[in-house]
Amino acid sequence: MTLDDLPTPCLVLDLGVLKRNLALMDRAMARHPGVVFRPHLKTAKSRAVAELAAPNHGPITVSTLAEARHFAEGGWHDQIYAVGITPQKLDLVAAIGPGVKVITDDPDVASAIAAHPAPIQTLIEVDVGEHRGGLSPDDPALLAVARNLGSKLAGVFTHAGHSYAGRSPAQMAAIAESERAGAVRAAEALRAAGHRVDIVSLGSSPTALHAEHLTGITEVRAGVYMFGDLFQAQLGTHPENDIAVTVLASVIGRRAGSVLLDAGAIALSKDRSTQAARDLGFGVMWDLDGKPGFGEAIVTRAYQEHGVVETAAPLKVGDKVRVAPNHTCLTAAAHERYHVVDGSREVIATWDRVNGW
Amino acid sequence: MTLDDLPTPCLVLDLGVLKRNLALMDRAMARHPGVVFRPHLKTAKSRAVAELAAPNHGPITVSTLAEARHFAEGGWHDQIYAVGITPQKLDLVAAIGPGVKVITDDPDVASAIAAHPAPIQTLIEVDVGEHRGGLSPDDPALLAVARNLGSKLAGVFTHAGHSYAGRSPAQMAAIAESERAGAVRAAEALRAAGHRVDIVSLGSSPTALHAEHLTGITEVRAGVYMFGDLFQAQLGTHPENDIAVTVLASVIGRRAGSVLLDAGAIALSKDRSTQAARDLGFGVMWDLDGKPGFGEAIVTRAYQEHGVVETAAPLKVGDKVRVAPNHTCLTAAAHERYHVVDGSREVIATWDRVNGW
Repeated sequence: MTLDDLPTPCLVLDLGVLKRNLALMDRAMARHPGVVFRPHLKTAKSRAVAELAAPNHGPITVSTLAEARHFAEGGWHDQIYAVGITPQKLDLVAAIGPGVKVITDDPDVASAIAAHPAPIQTLIEVDVGEHRGGLSPDDPALLAVARNLGSKLAGVFTHAGHSYAGRSPAQMAAIAESERAGAVRAAEALRAAGHRVDIVSLGSSPTALHAEHLTGITEVRAGVYMFGDLFQAQLGTHPENDIAVTVLASVIGRRAGSVLLDAGAIALSKDRSTQAARDLGFGVMWDLDGKPGFGEAIVTRAYQEHGVVETAAPLKVGDKVRVAPNHTCLTAAAHERYHVVDGSREVIATWDRVNGW
Repeated sequence: MTLDDLPTPCLVLDLGVLKRNLALMDRAMARHPGVVFRPHLKTAKSRAVAELAAPNHGPITVSTLAEARHFAEGGWHDQIYAVGITPQKLDLVAAIGPGVKVITDDPDVASAIAAHPAPIQTLIEVDVGEHRGGLSPDDPALLAVARNLGSKLAGVFTHAGHSYAGRSPAQMAAIAESERAGAVRAAEALRAAGHRVDIVSLGSSPTALHAEHLTGITEVRAGVYMFGDLFQAQLGTHPENDIAVTVLASVIGRRAGSVLLDAGAIALSKDRSTQAARDLGFGVMWDLDGKPGFGEAIVTRAYQEHGVVETAAPLKVGDKVRVAPNHTCLTAAAHERYHVVDGSREVIATWDRVNGW
């Protein structure tokens, strides 16, 4: 079977590119001996990918309890569920297994965790500048959460999502350093108050790649680096065309200066991450071999099942192309499986994803 | 079971609101006796909804072959697959059954349809101003497509998607009239050349509701009206709060002036349809009863699994809320099922959706 045989739209994963992106992160992490790497599987949501990214059932990060369940059943027991927990979800976490660690920044939730019969290890979420979740390292509530957690306190957790606003390796390194310093300051504040802090966890793909040193950090998380996308390419996370996941689409119409594809807002997502820098619309149309063979052929409009690409390429209805995504996590989320290739059009495997919650 | 018992995020469908929206369309269509109504199931993707919107296995519209297959298996055989067909997909269409009609605007595809062994009835797509797919009613290629289709020509098809740029009933009515006139002009051009044109099909929710007359039109299509959303409310498609589908979410964090929800870019979608008018971000947070009880509490930031809502509401972590979507078609696409309520928190049914392609 080749890509020519697949109904469109569907998701293509190039194994060679994936392996290159994994190797790039391996080299970056090798600069920090002793620091654990805990890949985030929110992007891949696939056990087959986890076998490559977190081999030997190594530590992982997940973004949903559906992922937590799926990977635990596959043998990955050391997990951090990286979205703030609620009291109501503790039974679900406990049912998955004792390896699933949770995060919170709330004193009342900490009390609920402490009162729960299961040994749910918990990290306190620390805000180092993204202002999404988490307590400032200097917030006295940090100590209240730790007190309430008692023996279920396992460490601190932060995510410098604002690293995505960086636009140079130097900016990324500076954000990584402030993330590191914030996480360590929180850990030290807790230790000074007599708490045991085993895990000091940080991460995003840019900070994982660009951090100059990780003194005081025990582990790093990152996810999107595995696949990459047009936005990460702009950030310099990976070489420009090393995007492992593309959407296979068919041309379903053509007019002067544009073609219409059967991949639209659902198949591509409406993410507009590249808008702030060089705006690449809803993705860029590559050729069937996964190369940017049409120049900068941008998906400028996305309807539910239609994408309009500005291009003068002499394509005809039925021709197949591949769209490089703006934000691979969201694009992949619309698809149930990967059709795996390795540098050619031959489909060598089909890998399932675990979507939903 | 009540909404309090459901894991979040998940999709809630209020049956009473759905029925009101269906009745509104029934009244609008009753003004046009003899015109067939062919609901578009791209939004609902649910047989249970189809039983209400297209009772007695009436004519339907679909946006994917997965929908076509699902509804044909459920007994809905009279379908239009409303996305331009490719030669490669004809075998899939034929396998679903002879009731699935397709659309094209391409002479070569028309020849491929004519050459296919199955009796695939085909509508020629006509562009009345959206400039997405379709031929202008005056384009000579219209006659070439008809000639190539031969006896498989069933009619003409248009969609005034640009009606979504209208902002008043008068503007909608004007766009509906130009859509009607364009479709009829295309049909007349074909008839003048000796072709039989049985179906003259148009539609979008705004034009279906606002068209003043439909002379020469045989059928109308519309989909999003069933559920509605914040954008359709701005267009006046339905009363402001008659949005049948909301995302049930939990508060997972709070800080001064905002709360953090466990519904983000996947659960809500990154659609920004309201941006052009009154910008409602990625949705508006309603209370657990599905009422706008927090005022204009807008989801201003959406990360993969996190949504940030600007609000001073005294919510605590674990509290449940419902988010009214910007664009219900895209929000619903991330979810596998509906949890059905009818004006209260009691969950009276669970209805499956058919996602993917």
